[in-house]
Amino acid sequence: MKIRVIIPVSTEKWTDAVAEAAKRSLRPDTEVEIMHLQHGPEAIQSEYNEARAAGHVLPLAKGAGGAGCQAVIIWCFSDPGLAAAREITRLPVLGIGETSQVFALMTADRIGIITTLDHSVNRIKRKIAARGLTARIPVVRPLNIPVLEYDNDEKVSAGILETARLMMETDRVEALILGCGALVGMRERLEEAFALPVIEPGPLTLKQAEVMVDLGLSHSKRSFMEPLPVVEH
Amino acid sequence: MKIRVIIPVSTEKWTDAVAEAAKRSLRPDTEVEIMHLQHGPEAIQSEYNEARAAGHVLPLAKGAGGAGCQAVIIWCFSDPGLAAAREITRLPVLGIGETSQVFALMTADRIGIITTLDHSVNRIKRKIAARGLTARIPVVRPLNIPVLEYDNDEKVSAGILETARLMMETDRVEALILGCGALVGMRERLEEAFALPVIEPGPLTLKQAEVMVDLGLSHSKRSFMEPLPVVEH
Amino acid sequence: MKIRVIIPVSTEKWTDAVAEAAKRSLRPDTEVEIMHLQHGPEAIQSEYNEARAAGHVLPLAKGAGGAGCQAVIIWCFSDPGLAAAREITRLPVLGIGETSQVFALMTADRIGIITTLDHSVNRIKRKIAARGLTARIPVVRPLNIPVLEYDNDEKVSAGILETARLMMETDRVEALILGCGALVGMRERLEEAFALPVIEPGPLTLKQAEVMVDLGLSHSKRSFMEPLPVVEH
Amino acid sequence: MKIRVIIPVSTEKWTDAVAEAAKRSLRPDTEVEIMHLQHGPEAIQSEYNEARAAGHVLPLAKGAGGAGCQAVIIWCFSDPGLAAAREITRLPVLGIGETSQVFALMTADRIGIITTLDHSVNRIKRKIAARGLTARIPVVRPLNIPVLEYDNDEKVSAGILETARLMMETDRVEALILGCGALVGMRERLEEAFALPVIEPGPLTLKQAEVMVDLGLSHSKRSFMEPLPVVEH
Amino acid sequence: MKIRVIIPVSTEKWTDAVAEAAKRSLRPDTEVEIMHLQHGPEAIQSEYNEARAAGHVLPLAKGAGGAGCQAVIIWCFSDPGLAAAREITRLPVLGIGETSQVFALMTADRIGIITTLDHSVNRIKRKIAARGLTARIPVVRPLNIPVLEYDNDEKVSAGILETARLMMETDRVEALILGCGALVGMRERLEEAFALPVIEPGPLTLKQAEVMVDLGLSHSKRSFMEPLPVVEH
Amino acid sequence: MKIRVIIPVSTEKWTDAVAEAAKRSLRPDTEVEIMHLQHGPEAIQSEYNEARAAGHVLPLAKGAGGAGCQAVIIWCFSDPGLAAAREITRLPVLGIGETSQVFALMTADRIGIITTLDHSVNRIKRKIAARGLTARIPVVRPLNIPVLEYDNDEKVSAGILETARLMMETDRVEALILGCGALVGMRERLEEAFALPVIEPGPLTLKQAEVMVDLGLSHSKRSFMEPLPVVEH
Repeated sequence: MKIRVIIPVSTEKWTDAVAEAAKRSLRPDTEVEIMHLQHGPEAIQSEYNEARAAGHVLPLAKGAGGAGCQAVIIWCFSDPGLAAAREITRLPVLGIGETSQVFALMTADRIGIITTLDHSVNRIKRKIAARGLTARIPVVRPLNIPVLEYDNDEKVSAGILETARLMMETDRVEALILGCGALVGMRERLEEAFALPVIEPGPLTLKQAEVMVDLGLSHSKRSFMEPLPVVEH
Repeated sequence: MKIRVIIPVSTEKWTDAVAEAAKRSLRPDTEVEIMHLQHGPEAIQSEYNEARAAGHVLPLAKGAGGAGCQAVIIWCFSDPGLAAAREITRLPVLGIGETSQVFALMTADRIGIITTLDHSVNRIKRKIAARGLTARIPVVRPLNIPVLEYDNDEKVSAGILETARLMMETDRVEALILGCGALVGMRERLEEAFALPVIEPGPLTLKQAEVMVDLGLSHSKRSFMEPLPVVEH
Repeated sequence: MKIRVIIPVSTEKWTDAVAEAAKRSLRPDTEVEIMHLQHGPEAIQSEYNEARAAGHVLPLAKGAGGAGCQAVIIWCFSDPGLAAAREITRLPVLGIGETSQVFALMTADRIGIITTLDHSVNRIKRKIAARGLTARIPVVRPLNIPVLEYDNDEKVSAGILETARLMMETDRVEALILGCGALVGMRERLEEAFALPVIEPGPLTLKQAEVMVDLGLSHSKRSFMEPLPVVEH
Repeated sequence: MKIRVIIPVSTEKWTDAVAEAAKRSLRPDTEVEIMHLQHGPEAIQSEYNEARAAGHVLPLAKGAGGAGCQAVIIWCFSDPGLAAAREITRLPVLGIGETSQVFALMTADRIGIITTLDHSVNRIKRKIAARGLTARIPVVRPLNIPVLEYDNDEKVSAGILETARLMMETDRVEALILGCGALVGMRERLEEAFALPVIEPGPLTLKQAEVMVDLGLSHSKRSFMEPLPVVEH
Repeated sequence: MKIRVIIPVSTEKWTDAVAEAAKRSLRPDTEVEIMHLQHGPEAIQSEYNEARAAGHVLPLAKGAGGAGCQAVIIWCFSDPGLAAAREITRLPVLGIGETSQVFALMTADRIGIITTLDHSVNRIKRKIAARGLTARIPVVRPLNIPVLEYDNDEKVSAGILETARLMMETDRVEALILGCGALVGMRERLEEAFALPVIEPGPLTLKQAEVMVDLGLSHSKRSFMEPLPVVEH
Repeated sequence: MKIRVIIPVSTEKWTDAVAEAAKRSLRPDTEVEIMHLQHGPEAIQSEYNEARAAGHVLPLAKGAGGAGCQAVIIWCFSDPGLAAAREITRLPVLGIGETSQVFALMTADRIGIITTLDHSVNRIKRKIAARGLTARIPVVRPLNIPVLEYDNDEKVSAGILETARLMMETDRVEALILGCGALVGMRERLEEAFALPVIEPGPLTLKQAEVMVDLGLSHSKRSFMEPLPVVEH
């Protein structure tokens, strides 16, 4: 099996971390092909960044089948281009945001998401609302550290721990989603501090892609119909 | 007052109809500046088209203030790039989809949207769900005539009349929204046949832009925060 | 165009302020006819007052067409008699409560209403729930100053500023509606203090009445059916 | 115990039927005081009628305590003036609409209401929405026979039977509420035809008033606060 | 009339209190037959206890008709086995949880439940969600005193008073349900302290059972269909 | 890894089919331990059967850890005892109903469930409502063939095909869940007939158990708290 992971930003910065996660999470015989954008923003921290990136994600999703892949992952908690990508390929396309939000429903009644910035809170909540999941995932709290400063150091770690504590004590959250692909590798420290499910969207989504392919499942072409041909300039 | 209307497709096909609608709908002293995309699809009939167009809408929205405009309209029922555009300008940005859906709430309890194609139904419903309006706007029915064949001739007109009839009799809809910017000019014929509010999103949105500017209102920068600087390639 | 504004209380106290707002908000060629009740309460601060007023609003709404008006406004945030008035006239009938709540949906994701008294909170929330808008307008906070003491002085102004601050910091509201027709003229001071959309229902509704008439729109007679004749004593 | 029943229309037409229902439903030692309006409409078939009646209901509700009553019933499925009446008396005030809708929740998952006229459907649905019960009571179907022609004859009976059949077969309703105080005495015939719970709002509400009084329960003065004094003309 | 009350725990501990409540609440001619489980847990404080008890409740419910009863009450706020019991008897089956939650809807807009333990909060909330009542009953607060220590002494009473105060001031609750069958007899003290409706589920449900029987009402066999025969080992 | 599968009925009838599914779905090094009940019903076709089975599921779930298992599956679309089992073990416990409903959210906007009997429709809908997923999974249609006649023959297959067709054409469902553990092995025939995602809960849940264990995830002990000790008779 080969899975194409699209990191929807124009930087190589995350490639090694994703490769590392894939190595830890996927079966030995599952190959991963990690791509990032040539054009578009270096980070997705706003609706603006997301809209600027989404169009560039699509050719990479479309080409995955021809390149021998059986599934596509969009590796950003915003899932830029997710619905559009599903229209243009018959391969299963997974976004790490949707995948982790949906999976979390099996772990707790009341779920919270730690996101990076204040700027992302409404953006994530709009997606949860569109999915009809607000009653189950009512809490999104920002860490307020810019993505590009995430170097897994102690400052970030302390910020996450403190935010997580607030989410449990004040927001009465019962499971946590680390709502940014950049938070790879921080789950262990959280688990030392708290005894709650902490969901890392990236590794989970890698595994769910395998499940989709194993079961021969993909997205409904009734929900995501093949687009009619339209000239593009 | 000057309003920039962005037609988010790469064709001049709609410019005259929009200019005509603006002439009929705006106050004499309101100027309209109609732009279309240089790059992107010629029509928006899918999530794919929408994602390919949205990124190109944004520079036009961003530049509106510098060009002396006081408001921006995205002239497509999908509102491609609406949230993103609101982040990058302090001018009010209106989408003809959102504007007409919200306004319709004042005219009836149960609202329906006629859209062009089967392909657009889920796409529109996702947006209504994200806005929390599904209970009030539960019905979206397709006309199933491709946008590019819309030449306002009798065939389209008959199709709209028949679809509208179904929506009232079967779906118990109490007000109709003509869910495509391309349906400009068809409302009169519908009003001859039915005695219901029929909302034409384009002309309505032109007027709402005037209202926004007159009242000095714009979108909340708490909902649509200014993006942090991110390098783009 | 002529618009009838019904102030649904039995006092002339608000007539000048409404006339002033109309002068500022309406087009020069739009005439406004301001009426108040001969019978009924002097203020609407309870369901009781509202029920006692609503019946007296209706003849004024019904007579508007015969008096050459093209639209009717009920100038009270409770919208007393709104649905009933829509049944008995083909003219568009707007309530400043509904109109501002609906319009606010275009400005922010999470909206709050400042109301006058604790007594009004549940009353307003019931209307928002009936409209299916609770998810978008979850916050109603009272100012706790009786309507009849509203003389626009500094005390009221300070109270509004403090309440607004609480709504933004504690309730995370992203746009504000001044939920009382009596708050005319206070928006400017709020805008000096905060950088958020502040919606004044009265002026907005005057403009929306113009829009309705300009577009030839009115309410659905399927939602608000003409009553069958019933003898009244 | 003495219960005041307010029939909120200006006719004696229903008094005997209510007295009969009270005799059958109440305990022998419970006294009932049946009043109708002196002013207002003879029937409530619209929001208009309801708004014209509600104001006249309130003095009768307010006076109930002074007249030695322990509870008040508003005997109309629209519950005109219900919330207002609760504000001005500490006695429990029950509406036959709300009481039967709430009680029905204990009998079935999916509940339907038979109403008299097409004109009442939206009016009832608005109240159900305001109560947050739409998911449980999604169906309201009209009988389309005017209230004043209700003389319990075979025509009405046949109409109800046919409407009930549609509600079960087409709407998959699992319990029925006879949504008009005028339908007194028809339940038996329905029970011969169907094996479903059929709730007669009037008799049920009489009994629930006894329960309220027996248990010393009334409505929350936090939900229905005592109105501040307001001059009325 | 004879009502069977099933106390779904394997202890006699509550029998006298229930008999006392029945004596106070039921009509003199209503007989009550109080049963408890022979097998199963001594208290229900978890989903685990509930699942272990529910199966044992059912034969007692099934046998009620043959023993000359006209109604069945499951006397535990969790309503263990409620839906199942309704399938296997035509007698009305009431649970004190559901009954009090539904009745409370008539007393206030925003309702809160005091429960015994932290362990019960999610369990109760799941039931409220399944009933579609979360918007009206959003608050469940634990007292955090184990059920078996409930001896009505001052410590429990003080705990309830303090919890009730928090629910009104912090959670803005407008009516209270004492969410445990074990809280019998504490309502009076609460009413001295607060001026709010306080609903005691047990006595209320006894009365509602009488109402059900008096009106010849029971549960819908469309919602709770007779099970097909299945062999059981 | 070892997974305990509990078939919550007192018959060996399904053991081979489950073993077959496990062989096809699990990794070679994942061991499966299939257990069925000694006591309880032979099939679960009602709330009654479910309540009679659930209590017997729990010791098997509790013992799984001691027997060297890393996960527990309850192999029935009703998920009997799911929440209770989660309270008494730290191992992840999956129900094939919940797991497939949640996973389906990633495949389509509007999901439908084929169940066996009319008797199961409300039972399944109550669970979907309790999970807050009704808006996404609004359709449950029965096949109306008793579980014990399911021998995978052509009659059942034809019934499923016809029901599936109705769900797509009439109910506009976009993905299907085969809502009974007994439907193992029928998915292939459905896929020949339709081009939609068809989710087989059993195989999917086996794989999701592997994912849970691989990622070290389990259920939140804040949602499913460890029960306090209670004596059981």
